[in-house]
Amino acid sequence: MTSSTQPLPASSSIIPEGLPTYDDVLTAAWRIADVAHRTPVLTSRTADERTGAKLFFKAENLQRGGAFKFRGAYNAISRLSPEARKRGVVAFSSGNHAQALAYAGRLQGVPAVVIMPNDAPAMKVAATRGYGAEVVSFDRYTEDRDAIARRLSEERGLTLIPPYDHDDVIAGQGTAVKELIDEVGPLDMLFVPVGGGGLIAGSALVAQALSPECLVYGVEPEAGNDGQQSFRAGSIVRIPVPKTIADGAQTTYLGEKTFPIIRALVHDMVTVSDAMLVDTMRFFAERMKIVVEPTGCLAAAAVLQGAVPCQGKRIGIVISGGNVDPRAFAKFMAE
Amino acid sequence: MTSSTQPLPASSSIIPEGLPTYDDVLTAAWRIADVAHRTPVLTSRTADERTGAKLFFKAENLQRGGAFKFRGAYNAISRLSPEARKRGVVAFSSGNHAQALAYAGRLQGVPAVVIMPNDAPAMKVAATRGYGAEVVSFDRYTEDRDAIARRLSEERGLTLIPPYDHDDVIAGQGTAVKELIDEVGPLDMLFVPVGGGGLIAGSALVAQALSPECLVYGVEPEAGNDGQQSFRAGSIVRIPVPKTIADGAQTTYLGEKTFPIIRALVHDMVTVSDAMLVDTMRFFAERMKIVVEPTGCLAAAAVLQGAVPCQGKRIGIVISGGNVDPRAFAKFMAE
Repeated sequence: MTSSTQPLPASSSIIPEGLPTYDDVLTAAWRIADVAHRTPVLTSRTADERTGAKLFFKAENLQRGGAFKFRGAYNAISRLSPEARKRGVVAFSSGNHAQALAYAGRLQGVPAVVIMPNDAPAMKVAATRGYGAEVVSFDRYTEDRDAIARRLSEERGLTLIPPYDHDDVIAGQGTAVKELIDEVGPLDMLFVPVGGGGLIAGSALVAQALSPECLVYGVEPEAGNDGQQSFRAGSIVRIPVPKTIADGAQTTYLGEKTFPIIRALVHDMVTVSDAMLVDTMRFFAERMKIVVEPTGCLAAAAVLQGAVPCQGKRIGIVISGGNVDPRAFAKFMAE
Repeated sequence: MTSSTQPLPASSSIIPEGLPTYDDVLTAAWRIADVAHRTPVLTSRTADERTGAKLFFKAENLQRGGAFKFRGAYNAISRLSPEARKRGVVAFSSGNHAQALAYAGRLQGVPAVVIMPNDAPAMKVAATRGYGAEVVSFDRYTEDRDAIARRLSEERGLTLIPPYDHDDVIAGQGTAVKELIDEVGPLDMLFVPVGGGGLIAGSALVAQALSPECLVYGVEPEAGNDGQQSFRAGSIVRIPVPKTIADGAQTTYLGEKTFPIIRALVHDMVTVSDAMLVDTMRFFAERMKIVVEPTGCLAAAAVLQGAVPCQGKRIGIVISGGNVDPRAFAKFMAE
């Protein structure tokens, strides 16, 4: 592991200048109000009994495109100048962000180009094309996707929208927890999945503003705890691509914008095993009747396995997405 | 098939005396307001594009106990006298009604006895006991469950709560569609699964009151179309136990109370194949990220397969439940 940034001063709830704020989340909420689903907050007597807490699940698996990513992507596109909108946007990702950007672009009449590895699952490529995006494929062993993105950006004037390290993306992702707290009131604790940190950064800004006593926890897969390491080290730690079923959290380092917010506002970072993610996926399907992808199970898994004492607490849990291949899902259910 | 009642006069939108009315649904809505989930109304761009209509899915799979049955059971129990509540209730069913009654009884401190065949799935028996009910098992080949229920009722003073042919049950089930229309406004069409007819009877009372132009369609599995036959014949037609994966619609005849309401207020009864139910179950899991049991797919399957022309219409679809065995669900997903 290597450290790529200078250590910050110890956590102080004070966010450095130049980063998004709760006000940015508020304006994002206005921008996406008529297009994003206001997803339901689900509750479960069984989960409450098992944990001794009162749990509120924000079901972003029921968001458009099947994940919270739609919020940030839509918000980022809606902030572009008329000229930039005409030229279009570009993203590299084989996951939920690319599909969200394609979908959000289509809804706003903004062309989207998605750079995907040529061995990406055919289903994901088809889904991205289905949202009207142009797919540019590359060989991940011989070509550099950043270089391709830069070239497309220069040649065609496309605006690159990164998956998490971007003010408007962070602000957009925060709107989910804003809806949650608006609906159920202040929380004692909030658990949020962590990949690159866009969702938890936006969520923490909201919790600080609307429920200042709330302790915010980030949750990562055991195998990919770069965020936890960074949090402890006080600087961004990079790790090799982790082996985990939580494909949305296979990121290898936090962002230059997400990390300082996490460091200032998050209470702790915890991890869960892949086996616990499978148990949680089954719990969601059997008891709560929802399909949740492995990454989407992170926050609930941490609470159900008792990572933090939560007896008698009011706890928010963000279910980040539900985009799991049906065959993989069937396999997890049959285990 | 045999006819067990006198034919009624032709459909006239006029409901005979002595049956539940919209007012009963209104009072049921008050009674269950603080305990039943107000389930979300889901939408899907993909489903809208596929049908050319605007679809509103009332997700009763996300109801407490995993099905709409909780509404009717809770309402029926809450109407009992203090003495009757003390003595308790009894139901015979291996399905969602028995579990709902056990659950509703527990919440109201009313003992519940559920009569189940001794070859009922262990999981269902455990779930029913888990809700605090006493399970009385019987041999379905040599014993008569009605006789057992009558005996328990006489010996212990238990009140029998039937699964559908009961005023308070019908009124309670109607509250789901009341919430749907309250939330999304008037509909052009409403599709509702049909077993014994409790859900559609309550729903039709609501549609007539809140959205009088709305055409209400009942949907049955092809193999078990006793309701369609009854609707056409003008009297209750009985059929042998149908072979279908829609186990909640394996009823063999409509009720003496549900049929006259259906005959007066329902526009038509349609059927769908088991293969179409599996397709719909997959659609719900893959695209809408929810787990729906086969019976819960009936209404959506009818619309998705184009059973009725619905171009440009605003259509309500009731998803009745999500209680499907995880292994069976995995099998359907992998097909």
